[in-house]
Amino acid sequence: MVRAIREREPLARIVGLDDNWTSSDLGDHGGALSGRVRQSLQDTDAGGFKNYQFDLVVHLASPASPLRYQADPLRTSVGNAIGAIRCVEWCKPDGVIFTTSTSEVYGDPIVSPQPESYKGQVDCTGPRACYDESKRFTESLFFDAYRTRRVASVRIARLFNVYGPGTLPDDGRAVSNFITQALRGEAITVYGTGQQKRSFTYIDDVVEGLMRMIYDCSYIGPLNIGMDREETVLNIAHCVREQVRLRDADMYSEIVHLAAAVDDPQQRRPDLTLARKLIGWNPRVSYEEGISRTIDYFKEELGL
Amino acid sequence: MVRAIREREPLARIVGLDDNWTSSDLGDHGGALSGRVRQSLQDTDAGGFKNYQFDLVVHLASPASPLRYQADPLRTSVGNAIGAIRCVEWCKPDGVIFTTSTSEVYGDPIVSPQPESYKGQVDCTGPRACYDESKRFTESLFFDAYRTRRVASVRIARLFNVYGPGTLPDDGRAVSNFITQALRGEAITVYGTGQQKRSFTYIDDVVEGLMRMIYDCSYIGPLNIGMDREETVLNIAHCVREQVRLRDADMYSEIVHLAAAVDDPQQRRPDLTLARKLIGWNPRVSYEEGISRTIDYFKEELGL
Repeated sequence: MVRAIREREPLARIVGLDDNWTSSDLGDHGGALSGRVRQSLQDTDAGGFKNYQFDLVVHLASPASPLRYQADPLRTSVGNAIGAIRCVEWCKPDGVIFTTSTSEVYGDPIVSPQPESYKGQVDCTGPRACYDESKRFTESLFFDAYRTRRVASVRIARLFNVYGPGTLPDDGRAVSNFITQALRGEAITVYGTGQQKRSFTYIDDVVEGLMRMIYDCSYIGPLNIGMDREETVLNIAHCVREQVRLRDADMYSEIVHLAAAVDDPQQRRPDLTLARKLIGWNPRVSYEEGISRTIDYFKEELGL
Repeated sequence: MVRAIREREPLARIVGLDDNWTSSDLGDHGGALSGRVRQSLQDTDAGGFKNYQFDLVVHLASPASPLRYQADPLRTSVGNAIGAIRCVEWCKPDGVIFTTSTSEVYGDPIVSPQPESYKGQVDCTGPRACYDESKRFTESLFFDAYRTRRVASVRIARLFNVYGPGTLPDDGRAVSNFITQALRGEAITVYGTGQQKRSFTYIDDVVEGLMRMIYDCSYIGPLNIGMDREETVLNIAHCVREQVRLRDADMYSEIVHLAAAVDDPQQRRPDLTLARKLIGWNPRVSYEEGISRTIDYFKEELGL
């Protein structure tokens, strides 16, 4: 996403802030940004930008892997919430504020697919709440910034299980776990029965959707950006195993089941009616193709 | 609540912070507090207590009337969220953190009565979200403070439509609106049909419940504190009108209907199983009795 914005905007006008908690995306791709700063949003005067006002503020913060965000839940909550407050402060009154929210705002949904109007089923005292509730808080804050005319426009993308090249091998989510395990010849570990369903969305499709939301659309409101083909986690594990074997006939991992994660949603699938209508967006990369590309990327990253 | 805590704790050990946005409760009752400070929680070093650590932190912040909290939604969101973050910072690792959360975390519920395990139906981009979502965020943050052992204990009370003496006559919620209008001989204004139901809970019952939660209970988890007899808003309007007429036979207000409020919940009633079991709490003041006492209080406040 940082790369896509760099290709679009004059570098001298871009400022990036990242505390590199779980990635070094700005470090890798943002070398030429005018004000690249390794600093947390939580600092009172983060990056010395207290009195800056930007035309476009893009809030991509927080790890999205439950393993990562639950490792320090207070940091997750505080980082997202104070980060959101700073973004409002930093946006010009005629500026645009954008954030990557999440399908986690739907919690463990009882409606499928989930339209943007679905209010969700989140346990606000549970172990996933640090992420889910701080994202819900951010959506609420940005909408009020728009309603009170503190900013001119707000765009909120609700992402569904993003994966692909760029993910850390030890990210902790299903696709990266499975690929890393299969490439190393280790057992593939599935939490619970594996019958829980997800809509795994390839990174290139996501970036395409987000760029359209920022630059080609004036719609105020959350938009689902996600694959609308749902797969069980177990099927993904099988797919990874088969594709690794296609590359090396000797590799064939056992699939083992661990205890189910607390509050793990049983299904998650976007209703894409609005995204299709408003930004003409459709996910194009099938999960078979996306997994294949991700395996190639991880093979190189891991030197295998 | 401030009065009840004052009667229980040595005054010299209590510090109160209030920016007096909608009330002057600390000013009225907290005169003898050692560190009474009129200052917002949002200031970086609110009240100069940055490095203090307290045994008990009680977070009562935010107006609860939709009229009031929607008047400045960014202030509501930011005040609640940063207030909650400060409370965690200020609590000793072996201390207790307490907050008055709200039945608004249940949104517009499709389950009735609502047990604490009900996940709610809140529109996180709607006009009530500034209050609802910042309270949900606070619950999440406090639970993580407990789970990560940052604090020893957390108590969360979910309050249902509190009313009674001490409320501002222009508070903006149903009971105070109706009483003020009826006492002034003005028309009583009901939003929508008035068939939406609420569980109006008298202030003395609420304070009794909160004090038990703080001092006589070690339960970690949210507890509903509310009247479990649900009434339509229209019935409350009739009750107010009749009781004002009992005091002055000439007073008899017309009841008029205004447009329904956006996202107004259609029902709201607590399941009190846990509160009964854990703190032996039951609401004792019927709404007829509570309204009668509140009318007497408002008559004096308004000089009528």
